[in-house]
Amino acid sequence: MEAGPAASFIQDGMVVASSGFTKSGDSKAVLLALSERAEFDPLQITLITGASLGQQTDARLATAGAVSLRLPFQADPVMRTLINEGQLMYIDENLGETAAHLKTGIFGDIDIAIIEASSIKADGSIVPTTSVGNSAVFAALAKQIIVEINLAVPSDIEGIHDIFLSGNFPDKAVTPITSTGQRVGRGSIPCNPDKIIGIVFTDKKDSPADILAPDKTTVQIASYILDFLGSEVRAGRLSNSLLPLQAGIGKVANAVLQGFAESDFEHLTIYSEVLQDSTFDLFDADKLDFASGSSITVSETCYQRIFQNWGKYKDKILLRPQDITNSAEVISRLGVIAINTALECDIYGNVNSSHISGTHIMNGIGGSADFAQNSYLSIFVTESTCKGKTISRIVPMVPHVDHSEHDVDILVTEHGLADLRGLAPRQKAEAILKNCVHPEYRDMLQEYFTEACTRGGQTPHVLEKAFNWYQNLRLTGSMKRHHKFQEPSPDLS
Amino acid sequence: MEAGPAASFIQDGMVVASSGFTKSGDSKAVLLALSERAEFDPLQITLITGASLGQQTDARLATAGAVSLRLPFQADPVMRTLINEGQLMYIDENLGETAAHLKTGIFGDIDIAIIEASSIKADGSIVPTTSVGNSAVFAALAKQIIVEINLAVPSDIEGIHDIFLSGNFPDKAVTPITSTGQRVGRGSIPCNPDKIIGIVFTDKKDSPADILAPDKTTVQIASYILDFLGSEVRAGRLSNSLLPLQAGIGKVANAVLQGFAESDFEHLTIYSEVLQDSTFDLFDADKLDFASGSSITVSETCYQRIFQNWGKYKDKILLRPQDITNSAEVISRLGVIAINTALECDIYGNVNSSHISGTHIMNGIGGSADFAQNSYLSIFVTESTCKGKTISRIVPMVPHVDHSEHDVDILVTEHGLADLRGLAPRQKAEAILKNCVHPEYRDMLQEYFTEACTRGGQTPHVLEKAFNWYQNLRLTGSMKRHHKFQEPSPDLS
Ligand SMILES: CC(C)(COP(=O)(O)OP(=O)(O)OC[C@H]1O[C@@H](n2cnc3c(N)ncnc32)[C@H](O)[C@@H]1OP(=O)(O)O)[C@@H](O)C(=O)NCCC(=O)NCCS
Ligand SMILES: CC(C)(COP(=O)(O)OP(=O)(O)OC[C@H]1O[C@@H](n2cnc3c(N)ncnc32)[C@H](O)[C@@H]1OP(=O)(O)O)[C@@H](O)C(=O)NCCC(=O)NCCS
Repeated sequence: MEAGPAASFIQDGMVVASSGFTKSGDSKAVLLALSERAEFDPLQITLITGASLGQQTDARLATAGAVSLRLPFQADPVMRTLINEGQLMYIDENLGETAAHLKTGIFGDIDIAIIEASSIKADGSIVPTTSVGNSAVFAALAKQIIVEINLAVPSDIEGIHDIFLSGNFPDKAVTPITSTGQRVGRGSIPCNPDKIIGIVFTDKKDSPADILAPDKTTVQIASYILDFLGSEVRAGRLSNSLLPLQAGIGKVANAVLQGFAESDFEHLTIYSEVLQDSTFDLFDADKLDFASGSSITVSETCYQRIFQNWGKYKDKILLRPQDITNSAEVISRLGVIAINTALECDIYGNVNSSHISGTHIMNGIGGSADFAQNSYLSIFVTESTCKGKTISRIVPMVPHVDHSEHDVDILVTEHGLADLRGLAPRQKAEAILKNCVHPEYRDMLQEYFTEACTRGGQTPHVLEKAFNWYQNLRLTGSMKRHHKFQEPSPDLS
Repeated sequence: MEAGPAASFIQDGMVVASSGFTKSGDSKAVLLALSERAEFDPLQITLITGASLGQQTDARLATAGAVSLRLPFQADPVMRTLINEGQLMYIDENLGETAAHLKTGIFGDIDIAIIEASSIKADGSIVPTTSVGNSAVFAALAKQIIVEINLAVPSDIEGIHDIFLSGNFPDKAVTPITSTGQRVGRGSIPCNPDKIIGIVFTDKKDSPADILAPDKTTVQIASYILDFLGSEVRAGRLSNSLLPLQAGIGKVANAVLQGFAESDFEHLTIYSEVLQDSTFDLFDADKLDFASGSSITVSETCYQRIFQNWGKYKDKILLRPQDITNSAEVISRLGVIAINTALECDIYGNVNSSHISGTHIMNGIGGSADFAQNSYLSIFVTESTCKGKTISRIVPMVPHVDHSEHDVDILVTEHGLADLRGLAPRQKAEAILKNCVHPEYRDMLQEYFTEACTRGGQTPHVLEKAFNWYQNLRLTGSMKRHHKFQEPSPDLS
């Protein structure tokens, strides 16, 4: 059927679930038709996805006022604005947990799920496309299902999906993955065909990933991480193939993965969420043995390259449901090395991944906590400053904590790497001050820490000054104390 | 051998590990002999345990200046003071993670482990006593071992230990527990007998737990939780035997467990860390089918009662290593209902479990994050105020975050229960303001939230005022704005 009539199944007040993870494998027809309809026929839905959508869908739906509640992740500037204005409720969730939350029924029943597919098999099961995300749980729970068959996706994508359903409490099963490449589930998503109320054909490609080429800063950060991992190998703590790698979104994580291509490490594996361009670069450089993720989100050129040479990659990739890629059980068993980007970090190693100045959401926590909490090694990267150095991304106290000091092992900026393992909080502060902070902020930060220590405590702070830098920023446009009169200091970045 | 000579194996600078979890099964002779020696023969060690020690051992060692670094948990007022003065380094760790950290070697080799035992078996393996804690990993990693055979512990304690070793990366095994009562390991701790350099006999009992009888407040909190769980059963989300329960330390958690004895729930199970008096009360009330923990920490009368009727309990208890009781894998598979105590909580549901006024450590994070992050339902309890209502335990922003809003489902005070599931941050604030805050602080908190909302954001705050209550407290002795002139308001607690 056409997208318009399919979208008309969706009524005001419904809970709608859609495939899609980091812009891949999302609904490309029905949700857009819905946004067009909503412009003249006002309605509001709860929209649940895997992660962010492509095709400007979140922006269009938000602009049309069609979303009252959104979860578990979005990364759209228009939607973000409405969220921060309090006009659109947003539940920012750990991406590994949404499936379990849905099974409890706390969001009510899913009325309609829209799932992009490569095909529907004879048994009614759905072969996904470039992402799996939460589609398996949507298919299981939704009252009705609309399938979008995407003809633009090469049909031999079939075979890379590993759909494992762990069941529900009190009979949840072991997820038996003990190595990244081990298939544990089936190749398609079980689906009761009676629930399928519409099949829509599309031929739109996934929105491509925006790949930012590594620059001086990100290459510098990557090289600190590679050196550090090399020293861990020399210390006998890791083998030369390390442990499975996870890399979050953001330009630094991408640069790090690219750095592995020229490294001495071999037979690497990836156990991550999003397989980006760098994954395929590592395959091509013969560094990578296997990659497990929940989506393939790549640039346009990379997309063409991989599907033209699909045979080369097909047996080395598995796409899994996000409650499996992000499962505490599997991540903690495999011993993942997690590399995620922080918006900012404080002197004790607490990380803010999601809220600008502690209040305004950027994207969301995504899978960062699923990995940081359960990994063998949790690395956070960030440039030491942003916005022309008016903002230090190392601060006295982060005004929003996504990852507590317990879940941050290594912090890296372009100035250096702080290994926080085995340190007490005051020692962490010294390591971060020495290695990570931008020189233009070091004295201010040292002064804060010194004064805090005179107040005592396991984790010293001067509460009434802890957020002064944000106050400076708000009132003067810079975190620096005497912004206008600041002597230019040498730029070491 | 005698404790004194055994303690003399311990040299300045050594890394010493000791059995002991919440005052149970700890070294009762060698560490005390060490503290006596340290008074005239100065030395400093790194001291690693399961959790807190009994016998005032932490206080004595701290007073003697014998500890330079302590991990992963302590709960001693004397040691705490030195920690907060910055004189003793303390690494407050998630209790489920220490074993994995030790295997990486980041704390250096363990020179000597002291393990309390009920007996040593013919194969050299060690039968623990009232706790397992980290003893299995200590026995595996330590260069040398001193065993303290405790003759006061009934020898038929043998049989309740379930020692499962999950191995190390990249070959970590599945931990195959799918129900609380399922034995997966062996009955004693494997140990190379060549490493045993001394056997010391003692007959000292465990330090008893301090049990605080439920009072009006804690009974009120317990009843909100029981009502809530009842409504979850009625909503079809839980069965009448719920899911395995975990209850943290603290008087509220104890009152809640006691409340189950008079409830309609049946065939309950416990998958927790510490088995307290209430565990045995629930067995006696025929409410509990099985309890898994890492220690038995009970009052003196309970201790006598259970060992005089040991046959009644023995087959219904397993004590396991703390990386198994607190394992993300098992907790998330079983779907534990976790009940932990907060020092304080903020309007968005972020919880501080460890740092008074954000800076001074109380005990530590303990196992609270292991459970809160991975549970089916994470409940935090706290009285709404303390110190004669000069302190509100619901605040605008907690100055230390142990558990982010993502890991807090339910918040309960004596004023009510806020169900935060499925709510966006602003909605959480409304639920907490309505249900949890003490009436004497409600207007102040509402005013803060209202002003914060005018600034916008997903999680609104007024950063320059976020910690004003702590400033009031520091300067005037109360968080209230006009402390001295406050009209006495009706006490609803
Ligand atoms: C944190 C995160 C936004 C960083 O992404 P990134 O692309 O590397 O971000 P940048 O460093 O370029 O910063 C993005 C923008 O935020 C701004 N910014 C960054 N840190 C800031 C701070 N502390 N205060 C104010 N603004 C800040 C930057 O200036 C930039 O603004 P611009 O686009 O106007 O130039 C991103 O990694 C994220 O959303 N993470 C959370 C989810 C996650 O970790 N998922 C991982 C598993 S997939
Ligand atoms: C948080 C914790 C300290 C609460 O324990 P509790 O026995 O219920 O504590 P109380 O409410 O009686 O408070 C203990 C003391 O701290 C004080 N206190 C509590 N909250 C406070 C706050 N927000 N600010 C200042 N003081 C506070 C109380 O007044 C009391 O002081 P007092 O002993 O002088 O009367 C305890 O549960 C803990 O250590 N938790 C962390 C570890 C954990 O959760 N483990 C769970 C798995 S075992």
